[in-house]
Amino acid sequence: MSLALCPGSYDPVTVGHLDVIGRAATLFDEVLVAILHNPAKQGTFPVEQRIAFIEEATAALPGVRVAAYSGRLIVDVAREVGATCLLKGLRGEPDFAYEVPMAGMNRALTGIETLFLLGDPATAHISSSLVKEVARFGGDIRGMVPDPVLAALAARGL
Amino acid sequence: MSLALCPGSYDPVTVGHLDVIGRAATLFDEVLVAILHNPAKQGTFPVEQRIAFIEEATAALPGVRVAAYSGRLIVDVAREVGATCLLKGLRGEPDFAYEVPMAGMNRALTGIETLFLLGDPATAHISSSLVKEVARFGGDIRGMVPDPVLAALAARGL
Amino acid sequence: MSLALCPGSYDPVTVGHLDVIGRAATLFDEVLVAILHNPAKQGTFPVEQRIAFIEEATAALPGVRVAAYSGRLIVDVAREVGATCLLKGLRGEPDFAYEVPMAGMNRALTGIETLFLLGDPATAHISSSLVKEVARFGGDIRGMVPDPVLAALAARGL
Amino acid sequence: MSLALCPGSYDPVTVGHLDVIGRAATLFDEVLVAILHNPAKQGTFPVEQRIAFIEEATAALPGVRVAAYSGRLIVDVAREVGATCLLKGLRGEPDFAYEVPMAGMNRALTGIETLFLLGDPATAHISSSLVKEVARFGGDIRGMVPDPVLAALAARGL
Amino acid sequence: MSLALCPGSYDPVTVGHLDVIGRAATLFDEVLVAILHNPAKQGTFPVEQRIAFIEEATAALPGVRVAAYSGRLIVDVAREVGATCLLKGLRGEPDFAYEVPMAGMNRALTGIETLFLLGDPATAHISSSLVKEVARFGGDIRGMVPDPVLAALAARGL
Amino acid sequence: MSLALCPGSYDPVTVGHLDVIGRAATLFDEVLVAILHNPAKQGTFPVEQRIAFIEEATAALPGVRVAAYSGRLIVDVAREVGATCLLKGLRGEPDFAYEVPMAGMNRALTGIETLFLLGDPATAHISSSLVKEVARFGGDIRGMVPDPVLAALAARGL
Repeated sequence: MSLALCPGSYDPVTVGHLDVIGRAATLFDEVLVAILHNPAKQGTFPVEQRIAFIEEATAALPGVRVAAYSGRLIVDVAREVGATCLLKGLRGEPDFAYEVPMAGMNRALTGIETLFLLGDPATAHISSSLVKEVARFGGDIRGMVPDPVLAALAARGL
Repeated sequence: MSLALCPGSYDPVTVGHLDVIGRAATLFDEVLVAILHNPAKQGTFPVEQRIAFIEEATAALPGVRVAAYSGRLIVDVAREVGATCLLKGLRGEPDFAYEVPMAGMNRALTGIETLFLLGDPATAHISSSLVKEVARFGGDIRGMVPDPVLAALAARGL
Repeated sequence: MSLALCPGSYDPVTVGHLDVIGRAATLFDEVLVAILHNPAKQGTFPVEQRIAFIEEATAALPGVRVAAYSGRLIVDVAREVGATCLLKGLRGEPDFAYEVPMAGMNRALTGIETLFLLGDPATAHISSSLVKEVARFGGDIRGMVPDPVLAALAARGL
Repeated sequence: MSLALCPGSYDPVTVGHLDVIGRAATLFDEVLVAILHNPAKQGTFPVEQRIAFIEEATAALPGVRVAAYSGRLIVDVAREVGATCLLKGLRGEPDFAYEVPMAGMNRALTGIETLFLLGDPATAHISSSLVKEVARFGGDIRGMVPDPVLAALAARGL
Repeated sequence: MSLALCPGSYDPVTVGHLDVIGRAATLFDEVLVAILHNPAKQGTFPVEQRIAFIEEATAALPGVRVAAYSGRLIVDVAREVGATCLLKGLRGEPDFAYEVPMAGMNRALTGIETLFLLGDPATAHISSSLVKEVARFGGDIRGMVPDPVLAALAARGL
Repeated sequence: MSLALCPGSYDPVTVGHLDVIGRAATLFDEVLVAILHNPAKQGTFPVEQRIAFIEEATAALPGVRVAAYSGRLIVDVAREVGATCLLKGLRGEPDFAYEVPMAGMNRALTGIETLFLLGDPATAHISSSLVKEVARFGGDIRGMVPDPVLAALAARGL
């Protein structure tokens, strides 16, 4: 039973995240989407809503689960859930450069491996933060986030 | 009539910015230097002064105009003014890496193209933030910003 | 009258090239696709055929012309035809890294500017050489090159 | 049953390759090391010997197999053997930059995914070509290749 | 008498820093580790403690001294102490990209040269900030910082 | 007595090389410019002429010597001459990427350190190969190579 752990803040989930999660679901028996959050800091969406967005968007993918974690290292989560590996999507070289020391540190800490998947180039410009910034100024982000996220951003005036 | 839109915060303008603006002025009929600012956040210089610095430094370039915008996406400004394209200077690979998703997002939003020009290598170490940091500690930034900016930084104890 | 010069070997033209040429045609009054070749070295396709492939693929774009040059610097061609600038498409950081010294050299030689456009991410994996390698081993390259190129590669057993 | 396909020329295998293969063997049920070669070009070692070097070095890893292929696309090999994915080791950004279009092309051709693993930093300077160059000039490459490769290089005066 | 100046915040020193300092000590007659700090901002450790950590860890290296500076440009410190050059360790391309404009600016200001040394790949994942983040969540950072730092972090519940 | 070893093929020396050599001469007591060549392959200029070009261009720098080596590893040369370190100029990220494994390998072989200096941005577009290519097509390379090299290239119809 192979289990890929996909960590992130997912605040909110984008079609870029869903591309990686969906492809991970074809490569591993199970995919655990792990939302890492800091209860002391308020994000854009409460963690329960972030979970709900992903659960709804991945409802058709049987092996995908979503859970939230705080105050812990992702490598400890990985050990607890018996993850085969961490799985990260890379949109380009800056993502790669950022992930190299993280993967090295995680391997140094517990031996866990990080596998990388290249994000679909068609979503390379999409990130949670850029989508929120565009939404805040009235840009049309349809197709960049799932519809419930679109509605929730609109409802908050974003 | 070709019009290049050069967006930035220009707080303050440097000789690196002026290199790109001046070269853009030889390539396009008009260049609109668009200062994007957030009225809720105070920059180093008020936006009127940033405009004045650029207007004075580009007075000899007939096709160059300067204007400030806030609360709007640059692509909406581009559409409103009928810009042919966005034009960005690149000092090196980090600039390139930063601009790739921005250009992709802007194209996805309205179809506007972003064209890139390589900054003059002789100004590759010059940025508004680094110049201000150097000035704050008494470094000699003559030749890195136009003289009025130099005087204004000095007057503020920077 | 603005004129963008798009140099390359185009052996053969791909949909990646055509993406850049087509977008250049919306930004400049004229686009000259300049095929640089070395008469002493045989390419995959003779230069006349490379021209014909591009002419056919760009027939609907009125401002686009194609010509071949050999034994000359592209900057001398640019001066002769009165080009506003060189225009290059970038598929990613390796292209950027390769083009930086070329653009610097060309500017040092004659003052000509090079403008860069980001290739459509959907074509980022497409290059003449990779397409030919795939074709040689029987891979399906439909949609990566124009149909006449597809037929010509097939006719040659590529 | 998960199967990772690790393509390469492995001429000869290095401890960098073996690091990736060994870690892949902990992540997938089976690992197929696929030596791609061109019968028309002579490599440093005949393909049978390259196979033997890897088989000997991975004898203790039950799920690892080695095979050689020529005249075929790796994606066709992947389909034939039922590979879950291609797996590549990355020593740094140049490897990443090189692999991005390859992975994009392979996915475009057959939908096969490429997963990436970061090479152990302790082997980042080791490649088949650099090791051979060092050996040719009498450098001490002990610890960079398995002992039988060391002996074979020495026997050939490399 | 050659003197290399190694600037940084060293909050706290890691084995990555010590690798670079130790190797610098074999290349230059003297090495001055310069802790740059801002008295208005509290770091993780007071500057006296940062000095003590480095002094203890480099006690066996006769040519190494440690001092703290604030409110000054590093190039002015370099001139005052008669430094031959600034010396920086690079863990990879992001470090390089960050240092290029800094080195250019420092050279423009006073002509001081910056020399770069590649960090030991075995420490490429180690930075003060990542180590502190890991420690905060209970990760095992033994071997990543000197023992007194380990104890001090533990004593503070980090 | 500090000695920096600057290896390269220098076929021919450019102002970019001379920038690095000249700055090295201010940082180290002695600089040995080591021309690595392969007697079996003919370069553009014979190695004696390459030496002469550099000797003439560095005549005013007392600590600089030039010598040619073949069939040996640069680290063995370094050991023989008692070099403090290898010194390399970097024009940008591609140079950095290329040098990382070389420096790692050289350190692994003999412990020799490699120090890097950033090339003057004004010479970033200058390389022996690009200069020769430009010269071959009649481009004006004055200021990119020393005058005797200019004359020698012209005399050979380059």
